[in-house]
Amino acid sequence: MRSYEQVQIGVDYYPEHWDESMWEPDIRLMKETGVRLVRVGEFAWSRLEPAEGDFQFAWLDRAMDLFHRYGLQVVLGTPTATPPRWLTANYPDVLPVFADGQIFHPGVRGHRCYNSESLRHFGSRIIERLAHQYKGHPALVGWQTDNEFGLLNCHCSQCNSAFREWSKVRYGTLEAINKEWGTEVWSGEYSDWDQFNVPFGGSRHQNPSYLLDFQRFQWDAVAAFQKTQIDILRAACPEHFITHNFHSYPQRLDMYSVGADLDVAAFDYYPNTSPTKQETTPYSGALSLDLTRGIKRQNFWIMEQLSGTPGCWMPMWRTPYPGLIRAYAWQTIARGADTVVHFRWRSAVTGAEQFWHGLIDHSNVPGRRFAEFSQLCTEVNAVSDKLQGTTVKNEVALLHSFEQLAALEIQPQTANLDYYENIKQHHRALTKLGIGCDVIDLRQPLDGYKVVIAPNLFLLDEQIAASLDAFAAAGGILLITNRSGVKNMNNVCVMLPLPGLLSRCAGVEVAEYDPIGTEMHTIVDGEGNSYACCQWSDLLTPTTAVPVAWYGEDFYAGIPAVTVNTWGKGQVYYFGTHVEERYWSELLANLAEEQELFRFAGLPDGVQASVRSGENGSFLFLLNLDRIPQQVQLPREYSSLLSGKALSGKLTLEPYGVEVLEM
Amino acid sequence: MRSYEQVQIGVDYYPEHWDESMWEPDIRLMKETGVRLVRVGEFAWSRLEPAEGDFQFAWLDRAMDLFHRYGLQVVLGTPTATPPRWLTANYPDVLPVFADGQIFHPGVRGHRCYNSESLRHFGSRIIERLAHQYKGHPALVGWQTDNEFGLLNCHCSQCNSAFREWSKVRYGTLEAINKEWGTEVWSGEYSDWDQFNVPFGGSRHQNPSYLLDFQRFQWDAVAAFQKTQIDILRAACPEHFITHNFHSYPQRLDMYSVGADLDVAAFDYYPNTSPTKQETTPYSGALSLDLTRGIKRQNFWIMEQLSGTPGCWMPMWRTPYPGLIRAYAWQTIARGADTVVHFRWRSAVTGAEQFWHGLIDHSNVPGRRFAEFSQLCTEVNAVSDKLQGTTVKNEVALLHSFEQLAALEIQPQTANLDYYENIKQHHRALTKLGIGCDVIDLRQPLDGYKVVIAPNLFLLDEQIAASLDAFAAAGGILLITNRSGVKNMNNVCVMLPLPGLLSRCAGVEVAEYDPIGTEMHTIVDGEGNSYACCQWSDLLTPTTAVPVAWYGEDFYAGIPAVTVNTWGKGQVYYFGTHVEERYWSELLANLAEEQELFRFAGLPDGVQASVRSGENGSFLFLLNLDRIPQQVQLPREYSSLLSGKALSGKLTLEPYGVEVLEM
Amino acid sequence: MRSYEQVQIGVDYYPEHWDESMWEPDIRLMKETGVRLVRVGEFAWSRLEPAEGDFQFAWLDRAMDLFHRYGLQVVLGTPTATPPRWLTANYPDVLPVFADGQIFHPGVRGHRCYNSESLRHFGSRIIERLAHQYKGHPALVGWQTDNEFGLLNCHCSQCNSAFREWSKVRYGTLEAINKEWGTEVWSGEYSDWDQFNVPFGGSRHQNPSYLLDFQRFQWDAVAAFQKTQIDILRAACPEHFITHNFHSYPQRLDMYSVGADLDVAAFDYYPNTSPTKQETTPYSGALSLDLTRGIKRQNFWIMEQLSGTPGCWMPMWRTPYPGLIRAYAWQTIARGADTVVHFRWRSAVTGAEQFWHGLIDHSNVPGRRFAEFSQLCTEVNAVSDKLQGTTVKNEVALLHSFEQLAALEIQPQTANLDYYENIKQHHRALTKLGIGCDVIDLRQPLDGYKVVIAPNLFLLDEQIAASLDAFAAAGGILLITNRSGVKNMNNVCVMLPLPGLLSRCAGVEVAEYDPIGTEMHTIVDGEGNSYACCQWSDLLTPTTAVPVAWYGEDFYAGIPAVTVNTWGKGQVYYFGTHVEERYWSELLANLAEEQELFRFAGLPDGVQASVRSGENGSFLFLLNLDRIPQQVQLPREYSSLLSGKALSGKLTLEPYGVEVLEM
Repeated sequence: MRSYEQVQIGVDYYPEHWDESMWEPDIRLMKETGVRLVRVGEFAWSRLEPAEGDFQFAWLDRAMDLFHRYGLQVVLGTPTATPPRWLTANYPDVLPVFADGQIFHPGVRGHRCYNSESLRHFGSRIIERLAHQYKGHPALVGWQTDNEFGLLNCHCSQCNSAFREWSKVRYGTLEAINKEWGTEVWSGEYSDWDQFNVPFGGSRHQNPSYLLDFQRFQWDAVAAFQKTQIDILRAACPEHFITHNFHSYPQRLDMYSVGADLDVAAFDYYPNTSPTKQETTPYSGALSLDLTRGIKRQNFWIMEQLSGTPGCWMPMWRTPYPGLIRAYAWQTIARGADTVVHFRWRSAVTGAEQFWHGLIDHSNVPGRRFAEFSQLCTEVNAVSDKLQGTTVKNEVALLHSFEQLAALEIQPQTANLDYYENIKQHHRALTKLGIGCDVIDLRQPLDGYKVVIAPNLFLLDEQIAASLDAFAAAGGILLITNRSGVKNMNNVCVMLPLPGLLSRCAGVEVAEYDPIGTEMHTIVDGEGNSYACCQWSDLLTPTTAVPVAWYGEDFYAGIPAVTVNTWGKGQVYYFGTHVEERYWSELLANLAEEQELFRFAGLPDGVQASVRSGENGSFLFLLNLDRIPQQVQLPREYSSLLSGKALSGKLTLEPYGVEVLEM
Repeated sequence: MRSYEQVQIGVDYYPEHWDESMWEPDIRLMKETGVRLVRVGEFAWSRLEPAEGDFQFAWLDRAMDLFHRYGLQVVLGTPTATPPRWLTANYPDVLPVFADGQIFHPGVRGHRCYNSESLRHFGSRIIERLAHQYKGHPALVGWQTDNEFGLLNCHCSQCNSAFREWSKVRYGTLEAINKEWGTEVWSGEYSDWDQFNVPFGGSRHQNPSYLLDFQRFQWDAVAAFQKTQIDILRAACPEHFITHNFHSYPQRLDMYSVGADLDVAAFDYYPNTSPTKQETTPYSGALSLDLTRGIKRQNFWIMEQLSGTPGCWMPMWRTPYPGLIRAYAWQTIARGADTVVHFRWRSAVTGAEQFWHGLIDHSNVPGRRFAEFSQLCTEVNAVSDKLQGTTVKNEVALLHSFEQLAALEIQPQTANLDYYENIKQHHRALTKLGIGCDVIDLRQPLDGYKVVIAPNLFLLDEQIAASLDAFAAAGGILLITNRSGVKNMNNVCVMLPLPGLLSRCAGVEVAEYDPIGTEMHTIVDGEGNSYACCQWSDLLTPTTAVPVAWYGEDFYAGIPAVTVNTWGKGQVYYFGTHVEERYWSELLANLAEEQELFRFAGLPDGVQASVRSGENGSFLFLLNLDRIPQQVQLPREYSSLLSGKALSGKLTLEPYGVEVLEM
Repeated sequence: MRSYEQVQIGVDYYPEHWDESMWEPDIRLMKETGVRLVRVGEFAWSRLEPAEGDFQFAWLDRAMDLFHRYGLQVVLGTPTATPPRWLTANYPDVLPVFADGQIFHPGVRGHRCYNSESLRHFGSRIIERLAHQYKGHPALVGWQTDNEFGLLNCHCSQCNSAFREWSKVRYGTLEAINKEWGTEVWSGEYSDWDQFNVPFGGSRHQNPSYLLDFQRFQWDAVAAFQKTQIDILRAACPEHFITHNFHSYPQRLDMYSVGADLDVAAFDYYPNTSPTKQETTPYSGALSLDLTRGIKRQNFWIMEQLSGTPGCWMPMWRTPYPGLIRAYAWQTIARGADTVVHFRWRSAVTGAEQFWHGLIDHSNVPGRRFAEFSQLCTEVNAVSDKLQGTTVKNEVALLHSFEQLAALEIQPQTANLDYYENIKQHHRALTKLGIGCDVIDLRQPLDGYKVVIAPNLFLLDEQIAASLDAFAAAGGILLITNRSGVKNMNNVCVMLPLPGLLSRCAGVEVAEYDPIGTEMHTIVDGEGNSYACCQWSDLLTPTTAVPVAWYGEDFYAGIPAVTVNTWGKGQVYYFGTHVEERYWSELLANLAEEQELFRFAGLPDGVQASVRSGENGSFLFLLNLDRIPQQVQLPREYSSLLSGKALSGKLTLEPYGVEVLEM
């Protein structure tokens, strides 16, 4: 087992925020509570290097030694998300520049241009020093790069030069760029590299090929910046793992390219605590976790887990309901998290994050939330050995792509055609049916899946089309939707009947389309049942496909809206419109039966099921992520991993109740 | 007949967007379809002059020759709306500067300061070369200046200097400016021209006299910029007509001053395709067309006509309903358009306008919309000879002014007193009554009209007042409304009882006013009928006028709200408040009867009637601009120009049905 | 009696706006109407000094002499709110710079950085000249500093330097700042003063200690700027009083520190005229007036009083209903105003304030509003002697603090926890009960009060806590609320159970809290009555207090929500949540009975009562601030100061009716 495969609970701790006299009482309490790991240091640059070249590691040495004395593992963060004031004052090229020319001054975190030479120079130096200092420390097990990478759309001169270089590598010449992007529109042709810039003061309504490449360039800048850190750490600390804590989905960062160089992906998970979000939070959370697992197609970490009400730059949320903290921690484990690190041990008393609450309040009196956390630690420690090495395996995949997300944000097709929301609908339908689902990059191999859902494949190339063709031809069920095959990967419209390269396997052509947006229309299936639809209406002309639903109104009433085509040993569904979730649920339930998918049926709203399995066995997680009690019917007798009791028949899950059953 | 008086259909075509191998098939299909004209070149500067002084006209020569070979006429656009990258990179004074100092960088179109010396130099040079190259080309019939002029509020140093010069010409001295604008308020007096600037970083809540003049200055800059182009073209190509394609109304551009130098005005017409806009689109569209006809008080062109769903920088609209493209093209002809050019032949596959759909989709497979366009071409070509030379003549005028629009935007009187919306209400009332209406600049002579509506004459001078006085004195019916006579033309309040100079002919004075805004009040007429009103309440004291409606509530219940005054041989109505459309409809219907106005009565909602007449006869257009069938009662038998059939009695117009009847 | 203690009516007049031939007719009419005072000059810098060093006082001499000839007193404004164009052009450091680097260019008023050396130099010089010129003028009685001080958040280099100096004075060293602000969070530690800046390009989500001190620095800059003016005026004109016209509450200006150096505070009062604001305007207005009286804990002036509909940069409001102008003028007197100056004599015909209407319209024909004003002058002059020297004395205080307001704006606790709105609710409950209330700075001595309400004491120190402890211990009733005692005065969270330093006297600790925000919950009192609550839920653990209300739902149903603690001879109420006004009304009515507070019971909505008393007697003001008649029951017979009639039993107040009764 690799060091990052332990199932355990950790906390985020900031020794530099507290008087040193508080350290040992804090760490002793962690130990007593069952905490196994701490993350430290990711914002501490000004303490580690208070002036240029003045490295001060003694305080961290003492903290690390204390952690070790109490048997706690440590993950160290590289501090590059918070360049200290001496660095930004003396080397202002560290600071990002917005499109309007304004500088992103320090004050909050993240004030660093990924392409800054000074940042790379001084960032590499402090990481080298840290790696050298702690490579042999017995407490240290791994590293976190930076913190919550995000896109800044920096427009500084370094970024401008780097974007030119990136484009030269990609296209070679301006002639090629002019051709690929079609810059002849509106006289945008480049004749000299000096004319080629990041989008200064630009409206986003520029050439979409340009805007998509500018996005890709930024993604690559983040990955390249991280790579400089990883190269240093791998060389100095070959025994340590390296991770990064991604935050929130959807967001404009290509998690796949940034994740490619990591040993293990991590996620910062803050499910919304409001009862008004009850219908969505459990499911959008599940999607985020499945997507994080898909980054490396293996188990992952939670590096920051909800521990109290968040607040600060937004008004505070509701305090977590009793059981919520524990239940959402179990949800992460149920979906493949191994180590779950809670943010944060104690709420900060200074700085802009004072009201992003930790496990312990400002008063330093542990309360209800801490007691719940303590129970969680005890439970996880009790079953950790059994769960270690188990993973989540599914028969259904949902294909996902940050390029599609970016392209559909650059050119919104209708007011309500939202790539993320569409993905979420499909994922929620599966989750409510009790069907596990992987969410993976659309270029991943599809071996082993029985059903693949690939929504809104706006950008397409032959490689992706061939992969989907092959999947279906080999017997898979492929479901694709409108706005697919519209463009090539340079964001240029193809001169083919839609869905372009997918017309073959889908056996259908789009004769015309109607962007119905927020207007609610209907489709009618073969039995005369009506379903609401919106966003888009492709008027379908089947070539070899068979219609299974038809439009219910407008001048195209009776025209096919959904078709299915037999392709090799498999089948390809095409959805010309965005149908309500009920239609998808019924279709997927039928497919589950036909394809004999594993499914835990009969879940009430808010209750989720998932399975981890491995050499130690298979474990069924049943989680009530709601404030009211819920019941599920167990198909047979199971033994509870948490209580050791035998359970069968109707199982009542208390509000935020958790069961883990040995299968 | 002048070359721009042909009734015909054209298309916008961009040879530079397509591989040359596609040109001849495209042009052949145009010919076969019945297209008679193409507009080309207005964005092609980077292809015509790829580097400074490197003129490349061979490609356009080949395209022009092809057009000629297939018998198509050509309108060439001057390419100044899209300065190429070499120009903006080497001569950055071309780029506009916003009030906050940000530069309007290239990327989208329109990145050009009208006062830029470099733009004028290089713009004039390419236009001279184009004129020289094509003045004798047999396909070429006319020129379009630039593209869709719009205001940028440029604040560059060239504009700053130009604004000083403009103000010197207008006022002579700073002393005069201080006096006319009342700059002593808030110590804003100028003592040196160096202090006199465009509104840098200014809030719009500055001296309203200054802001209005800054607006006028910008209008003049557009007209002067266009004049440099027109001078070149008239000198080189005396046989060709010159037009400009105005876009969207209302907007902050003085179409009258820009239109003054043109041979014929053109408009880019994109009626909203959404069924949720059914109640407004046919009528706001009719207003735009009547307003365009008023620019030169003669027939006009449509240079871009809706051909598919627009989209790109906004989410896409609904696809045009079957018949909508054809019906709205006929609407433009019904209201005085001669040539109607459809935008665009085929949707762009690259660039920011990919989803502003043309007649043919990206796939290059002509579909339903193209078939409808083809029918339109056939129909128009069949009746073109008959319609040529006919024009629209009306007995009612609606006075309009961009200065009023600007002044009321600079100082909104209440949240919902909107100059354009008020105009639209009056125009819609007339249109629904089947009464044709001219929309003309308020300084135009009023000879020949029986009824003139002049809403919200916020700014007023003796010349306008005298013109209105004279119109009424000679027997005309004049209708004026609140917020009239408030200011002189320098946007300074007059020290007179309102409506100021119009108190004479209106026979009424405003004792006090109450800006009721969005609150709904009522007025009551002589028969006790109630009507809703809002925006404003003038408490009227008739001097010689007679009240015809009174306020229904508040402390001024019973005070006159609407009056009518006999003035010479005519009558002047004064509306102290903004009354609902129903009141206007009833009043205008009565006036129509009294004044024996031509009227096509009995139109259902969405159906419009208008008449073109000339030496060839008179033609009544009946257009159903709705998705449901509608019926109209024909007062006698007519012959259909489209079908040749005799029609009488109840005429059923299919959804988007069109009839043209010989009168 | 001091010169500023006369009860009288004035007007704001701008001689520089009008042709000199209009001055004498205007002033004669003022005299005839009963006007006793004019304010002049506060925007006239460009007329007083049209070029650098060119002082032109002759016009003002003539105006002053005219005022004197007609027996009118004069208050002169210092003109620093409107630096003339020669000053801003030649000394651009006068102009403020926004956080994004943009300059606040002239055009509107207020374009001056309080820390500008040039402003201070030239501002002091013109004030010295004015003081020298008019110190002996018989008409002049006092001075107004600048106009409506407001915060600009200037970020110029002068402000940057000044902020460093201010911080050095406050903290001494960067080490101290780092420690007090906790800058180690996110590596924000300062190691050199060059790194220490105003928040350039900063999001507001920076270190809250820093942001609060930046706010305090700005407050101090205003006070220091004003102090330079006051020092000059006091030295030259020891006989004159000095005031400043504060405007609108709440706003981001510390009225207490700016008010400290004045002889008398003044307020610009524009109650909203809309009937849709009827429920709030009378009460928010009363709060503003009570707060203004609290600035110096003495009578005050109104320097600008509503005289017509405001408008200009916003759409115009409704015209004042008949009686409204008079009634709201009486409201200011009822709550402690002595001189009430109406803004403005006549509406401006030029400049950006054209539609901020004065007593007389642009037409210069006095109308309904002027007649009402005339009545007001007559009435006030008739009773002036009696009212002179009387003041408002109350038994209840509402503690207020601009620091709390700022801190709660920097870190909103929930979407709807609004310090001002909470204060307003408490004040309105008292006003509706007919209980007078002082609104004073929370550091004021509390002697003489029976009840003190101190909401949301977010920031707290021992001095404030001790003052509250002592008040209650001595027998007072203290009411405090949630979000109290959270922070020290440096905006750092305290490590104590909440309400921190107030836990002692409140006898309660907050075990946990739930930011319920806009969700409506309930509390239940001892008799089982339910009341709605929102914003926040503190879960209370009484130590010595007794619960008097409990939460009605959620996981803390039954937990105490409101408690009362006996502390010395008094009692301390603690509100863990924001309860609806009804609960406060019932509690305060009970307290009024127990504590034998003076109260005028039985007021209908919209009717307000207050008392002025002094050597001349006591006077009860009864004001109907509504558009409908209202009745109040008089407890005994009174003599009307206005009509001289004896009144008893049911008193009917007409719409906007006013009575002043001798007690």
